[in-house]
Amino acid sequence: MNHNLLIGTDVVDEKNVKILSRYSRVYKLVDLAEAGLDELLPSIDSLLVFSWPRQLTSDRLGRMTSLRFIQSILAGVNHIPFASLNTNAIVSSNAGAYSDEVAEYAWALLFSAAKRVVELHVSLREQKWTLKRTLDEGSEITILRGRILGVLGFGGIGSVVGRIAKGFGMQVYAYSRKKPAAKSVRFLKGASGLIELLKKSDAVVLALPLTSQTARIINAERLSVMKKDAILVNVARGELVDEKAMYDHLVANRNFRYSTDVWWYRESRECLKTDYPFLSLPNFIGTPHVSGPSGLATGQPVQIAVKNTVRFLKGLRPRNVVNPEEYKTSYPY
Amino acid sequence: MNHNLLIGTDVVDEKNVKILSRYSRVYKLVDLAEAGLDELLPSIDSLLVFSWPRQLTSDRLGRMTSLRFIQSILAGVNHIPFASLNTNAIVSSNAGAYSDEVAEYAWALLFSAAKRVVELHVSLREQKWTLKRTLDEGSEITILRGRILGVLGFGGIGSVVGRIAKGFGMQVYAYSRKKPAAKSVRFLKGASGLIELLKKSDAVVLALPLTSQTARIINAERLSVMKKDAILVNVARGELVDEKAMYDHLVANRNFRYSTDVWWYRESRECLKTDYPFLSLPNFIGTPHVSGPSGLATGQPVQIAVKNTVRFLKGLRPRNVVNPEEYKTSYPY
Repeated sequence: MNHNLLIGTDVVDEKNVKILSRYSRVYKLVDLAEAGLDELLPSIDSLLVFSWPRQLTSDRLGRMTSLRFIQSILAGVNHIPFASLNTNAIVSSNAGAYSDEVAEYAWALLFSAAKRVVELHVSLREQKWTLKRTLDEGSEITILRGRILGVLGFGGIGSVVGRIAKGFGMQVYAYSRKKPAAKSVRFLKGASGLIELLKKSDAVVLALPLTSQTARIINAERLSVMKKDAILVNVARGELVDEKAMYDHLVANRNFRYSTDVWWYRESRECLKTDYPFLSLPNFIGTPHVSGPSGLATGQPVQIAVKNTVRFLKGLRPRNVVNPEEYKTSYPY
Repeated sequence: MNHNLLIGTDVVDEKNVKILSRYSRVYKLVDLAEAGLDELLPSIDSLLVFSWPRQLTSDRLGRMTSLRFIQSILAGVNHIPFASLNTNAIVSSNAGAYSDEVAEYAWALLFSAAKRVVELHVSLREQKWTLKRTLDEGSEITILRGRILGVLGFGGIGSVVGRIAKGFGMQVYAYSRKKPAAKSVRFLKGASGLIELLKKSDAVVLALPLTSQTARIINAERLSVMKKDAILVNVARGELVDEKAMYDHLVANRNFRYSTDVWWYRESRECLKTDYPFLSLPNFIGTPHVSGPSGLATGQPVQIAVKNTVRFLKGLRPRNVVNPEEYKTSYPY
């Protein structure tokens, strides 16, 4: 037992703790008093977290001089304080662990917006609709068949979103660093590729990691090239979108729809409070970041994160190691 | 010109009126005064309607002694007063004309319910949610992948619903009179087949025509065999479901969800007013019958109905002729 692993979350069940115990001494943050934690810090070489634990302040992180490996159970790693991390520590994301569930959720958000399900349901509740009115509104319902779906980020989630689109008879445009394996997908890259995708797409799904390169990738300029009645879906991170630009765009373009499960950050944390009253707009749909938890509930993300941690503990190269340079930024997240 | 065609709706555009004029004298109900209409009735041999026109009372229908053919632009024909119809007249439905659009809409309703999009959006609007609460609720989100989708009625709409399900990795059970062509679909028929489908399915889509056989096919007994957390989607006709049984079931089973675009009948017409307060239930989603109009807006249903009417006018056998016996009923619709 050459390893000392700290588990910084209570989402890891006992079965998985046992598996980890075969390869390392295991400490659970929840079991440690402040003093006990401070004593342990210098010996901890591996860390398994869900989101970043508040107790691990940058001061404490500075004293974790043996730290070599951090595994995130969240898919994205933008919660990890890369700027305060020593250069010997590598970080693994949990990319792909939630793909099926989050891709399904993306379709739920896309459909709810395309068919105006939320808007219509609310207007029935408020008795603001009659069946006579229905017939004129047929053209406000977006038909997806034969249309173009743009997917930004064609990794685990994005590629499943794209695969499903085929069943609906949609064409798929993928904006990605790596060329997708799927043959029938149109591959676009770089700034001009992004603009082309945004111009042509009837619906766009954001499935990118949040890095210094992707933060606010959807800004006023890029929104302005999109179709006036396009649908934008976000199942990745709220900060991929410029908040003010999005609000102004929704107000100015009532047929444009933004449907999101993820929210902007306040004091470095995702927050349901927004600077602008999005929830009062009929062309905005928001849900409280449930796509990930719906995947977590399957048990799979924890299992995959534990498996990857075991790789490190056994001396193998962990999968999904991220490039820290992409996450070092003065941007507050 | 041996034919006299009466068009009883304003959804047929001028281009299509011209096409019909090549084969028949064409009269538009909207252009006729009462007296002119009464004079014409005995000579009309073909009738093109959207829903049944109120002016064509059973008294007037009795005077249409030459009537041989009625084409519905609505997919279903349950609006046609079969009991007052002379036996020489055949009736064609517009089955299949809305399949893609209504199938997409069925998926929108299914997803909105599975992922609780409406419920979550409304709770955010009412500030009844925090992100801390989210994690516990992950298990309330239904994952569709690997689950069973039951489709009642495997015609135009049902088969498209089933095809899409494959993209999501769902198994499809079809309840139908005819064995589906799709190989990977499990075919069930008869009363016991229906019960088996309802027992096993995680989600059920209603895509049946409303006939004397299918009215209230979903009643208290059949609801009772369904999974406690199943999702029922209705894009066909409200009257396929027993209203009181549905309400009682939703109140007693808070994880069961009913998501519908179609409503019960009041005075022989579909009506948004219900006997029970469905819209106050969190596990009910309702939209005002927009799936059909979204198809109508493509222009295709009118085109298909006109093409079939031309078949009759040319002396060919029209397609989609229905069996009137299935629609003769004392049931008020």
